[in-house]
Parts: sequence; C-alpha cells; structure tokens
Amino acid sequence: MTAPAPAAPPALPAPFGARLRHAMDTRGPLCVGIDPHGSLLTDWGLTDDIAGLERFTRTVVEALADRVAVLKPQSAFFERFGSRGIAVLERAVTDARAAGALVLMDAKRGDIGSTMGAYAAAYLAPDAPLFSDAVTVSPYLGFESLRPALDAAAAAGSGVFVLALTSNPEGAEVQRATAADGRSLAQVMLDHMAAENAGAEPLGSVGAVVGATLGDAGVDLAVNGPLLAPGIGAQGATPADLPGVFGASAGNVVPSVSRGVLRHGPDVAALRSAAERFADEVRAAVGGAGAFRGDGR
Amino acid sequence: MTAPAPAAPPALPAPFGARLRHAMDTRGPLCVGIDPHGSLLTDWGLTDDIAGLERFTRTVVEALADRVAVLKPQSAFFERFGSRGIAVLERAVTDARAAGALVLMDAKRGDIGSTMGAYAAAYLAPDAPLFSDAVTVSPYLGFESLRPALDAAAAAGSGVFVLALTSNPEGAEVQRATAADGRSLAQVMLDHMAAENAGAEPLGSVGAVVGATLGDAGVDLAVNGPLLAPGIGAQGATPADLPGVFGASAGNVVPSVSRGVLRHGPDVAALRSAAERFADEVRAAVGGAGAFRGDGR
Repeated sequence: MTAPAPAAPPALPAPFGARLRHAMDTRGPLCVGIDPHGSLLTDWGLTDDIAGLERFTRTVVEALADRVAVLKPQSAFFERFGSRGIAVLERAVTDARAAGALVLMDAKRGDIGSTMGAYAAAYLAPDAPLFSDAVTVSPYLGFESLRPALDAAAAAGSGVFVLALTSNPEGAEVQRATAADGRSLAQVMLDHMAAENAGAEPLGSVGAVVGATLGDAGVDLAVNGPLLAPGIGAQGATPADLPGVFGASAGNVVPSVSRGVLRHGPDVAALRSAAERFADEVRAAVGGAGAFRGDGR
Repeated sequence: MTAPAPAAPPALPAPFGARLRHAMDTRGPLCVGIDPHGSLLTDWGLTDDIAGLERFTRTVVEALADRVAVLKPQSAFFERFGSRGIAVLERAVTDARAAGALVLMDAKRGDIGSTMGAYAAAYLAPDAPLFSDAVTVSPYLGFESLRPALDAAAAAGSGVFVLALTSNPEGAEVQRATAADGRSLAQVMLDHMAAENAGAEPLGSVGAVVGATLGDAGVDLAVNGPLLAPGIGAQGATPADLPGVFGASAGNVVPSVSRGVLRHGPDVAALRSAAERFADEVRAAVGGAGAFRGDGR
C-alpha cells in the first residue's frame, strides 16, 4: 500500500497587475464607474431609494460585467442607504466578478494600524462579503500607514490604488505641497508606488489615481503599475487627451468613465454601445493589443 | 373668522459645537471609541463574527451611552462584515443617540464633488440610516473638497472632524510637508478650520483630529473648535499629557480612548468604572466645569 500522493498546494491567485493587464489587453483598457447619483436614478425613470438603487446597479452589471475590463462601484452612493445599500453593493461585486469583470471598490479608505487592517479585511480578504479585486485608498496619514492594505492585497492577488494627483483644483493645496526633500507630495506617493512595483511583470499591483484632466501632470508617472484616470467624459477629458497627460505611461492607463456611459441607460444595448465607443477611442489614442470584445473573451 | 396662526417654523437643531460643549461640561470631556477588533471580541469570550460583533457593540452602548459625552464607532470594524456589520452599526448609532451620547462616526471619508456629497448624505443627512452627530473626514483632495460635508453638517446641526496632524510617525511625510506659502500642511488645515469656526459660540462645529502623543505639536491649535485627540490609553498618552500638547486649547480637547476602556469588558460595571476614571483624569488635567455624572444629566 502506497501513501496517498500529497494534495496539490492551493493555487496562488495571480497577481492583480497581471490579471488587469490581461483584462485590458483582451477587453480593452476601460473602467466604468457605478455611481448611482440620485439624479441619475431619476433620469433612468427610477426612484431615488433602495429599489431604484438595486435596479440601477443590476442593470449596469448585466450590461457591462461580461465585457469591460474594470467596474468601479463608488461606495459613497451605496453607503447613503445604510446596510441595505451595502447589501446591493455586495451583490454587485459578486455578480460582476462572476461575469469576469475586475471590481475596483472606490472607497478611498485611509487610517492607521489595526483600523487600516480592518479596512483591508473588509475589501481585500477573500472571505469578506465585499471582497474586491482592488480598492482605492487615501494617504493623508502617510504612505506607510497603508501597509496593512498593501500586505493584504499581495496575499490575495488583489490591488491597491493610492490617491496621488487628482484633477480637482483644490487638490493642489495638498498634492503640490513640498516634502522635506523637495519633491511634491504627489511625486512622493508615486515614488513609493514605483518601489512597491519594482520588478513586477507585466505590471505591478499597486496603482496610482491620477486625474486625466491635468494637462502635463509635471510628475514622473513611471510607477510600473496601473494609472487610474478618472475624469473621462462628464468631467471634460477625452481619450485623445491621454497621451498628452500620461506620455510614455499611457499604455498603463485605466481611463475611468462614469456618467459618460451611465447617462445612456437604462437601455442595456445603449450602455454597451457607449462603453464600446469609449474603449475604441481609448485604444485608438493609446494603442493596445486587444480589440474590444463584446463577449469578453 | 380669523386666519389660523402660522405654524411655528421647525426648530433648527442646535449646532454641534454647542451640543458638544454642553455634553463635555455635563458628562465630562471624554470620547470612547467602539472598535470591535477581532482580538477584543475573543478577549471578551465572543466569536469574531456577526454575533460577536452585535453582542460587543450592544454591550458598549448599554454601558456607556447614558454617561459619556461622545461614542465613536470605528466604521472599519463594521465594514469588514459587509451589510450585516453595517446593520449592527445602524442600531448602535440609533441606540447611542437615544441614550443621550453624541455619536462621532469615525469613517475618515474623503472624495470630491458629488461623491463627497453622497458621503455627506450617508452620515450627515437626518433621514439617513447612519445619521450621526459628526463624522471624521480626510483632506488629501484639499480642504475645499470637503465642502459638501461642511454644508450638510451646518444644515443638520452636525459636526465634521478633519484630519490635521496625527501621531503615527509615517504621517509626518504628508502633514509636515510645506505648502506654497511656507506653512505646514497640518497648519493649513487647522487655519481652514479656524476660518470655518470664526465667531461661533461657545465652540465651532468643525473639529480637528490631532494626535495626543505628539509632545509639543508645533502648530497653532486655536481653531475655536473641538480637538479630537486619539491615542489616550493603549497608544501611550495619558490625560496628564494633554496640557503639554494642547496648551491653551486643552479645554477644547475631546480625548479619545478605546482599548483602555474596552479591555475592561464585557462587564458593564467595569466598563463604566474605566470610563469614569479616564473622565476624572481628563478633568483633573485640563479643568472643566462639570463633574462626571453617571446618570448623564
């Protein structure tokens, strides 16, 4: 009698950066925000309540989760309905991931020590109800305060997107301030991210949030990680602006559009067409291997 | 037939700063955090799951909401259980406010535009499930990005606590950076708060989060608003340190203790005794009108 063969070790999850690169190359490099504004619910003919939130969210997921690279629910619009809103968010995350989209939870969390660890447990632990492929975080407490999230993401094959340089005018007060060594704070954050991503192939798992409406950003964006660029569409930037802002890093940009797509709902075909147009425009502007594939394969 | 007398206008809520001043003067100037760490639940003989979370939270509220000035639930520890955790948080907020405590939601939210508006709707709109007396926010996107929260708080008689200068060592990277006019970023934030609170009596409603373990903070803390000082107890600061850190503003300090009180649970009387000891020590250190009143009046 021979001993049974040892069980195979559990498969490690592929790193987020690799999964994102694959999704961008096959589905086109586009992130669509799920931002259930009250006014948007009304425009869709829905009520601004939990029923409207649920209908809106399920429609967006149904329309787009099998074809766009990333869906980005904006946590704030679910939190305003308390626990019932979070239940809708849980289902959206689960359904979107099951359909093959990467889910980036836009929560911009930031705290220290065990509290940051609890946020990591909420969004980056595989057994959490809101387990996501990545989460946005805010570094006002210092980049190293985010370490529990960075560690949890690495263990789970997930990603972390750190606020670096945003396009709202009032952000310069903080992000263009000067660190002790003369760098701008935005550059300090970007340099931390580059260090985290050093050596990662084909792309690191620590991303930067960088506004797409900045013109020349005046910082070094070569972080070897994804660059989430909100502001496409309603905020005034177009895909054609991306090379001017991001230069040699344009191929790592994940442009994010929200109202520019969502305003075409609730018709599913119209939502899909709008997302496809944006993806095509992005690919035309920045290059990229894959054609946008409506079936997501 | 005479016209009916016009209905009295709805009573405006008293501003948060006034309500907080009254609570600190009558109940003693202490904030107790509700931080359901997994390890703390275990120490209490509870399971680290939704049942344990619920039991822990209800016990803390039962023990302290009728006697401490402020209860501060840490949102992260509820978010890790998804919508069911948020349901526990909703009940805690409602029960604590009904028992007379002011509830400060420690969420450190921060975003721009309509997203910041949605966070304000989540925590500062009176009809929201998580409506709180105040919320903590993070200014990495610039102080003015917080305007929707400041406006919502003013309308509801609620408060906003803005991260300014934290005591974690990695925070200096950001908070001690230099703004364009030479001030530190922490000072820039404090000056914004002072402007918001100008003329408010007896205390403004925009507070600052300032670490209590800093030694001399090296910034001007005269913001005419409350100064939330986490770090009492487990993080190493004692009430006796407060005058050295906060100087002439020590009377506006809301010292926050979490594990230093919570580790005495689950016994209700022991939790109450621990909170009373801290409140007495704070009053001895910084003065203050009111004696700690176990009945909360």
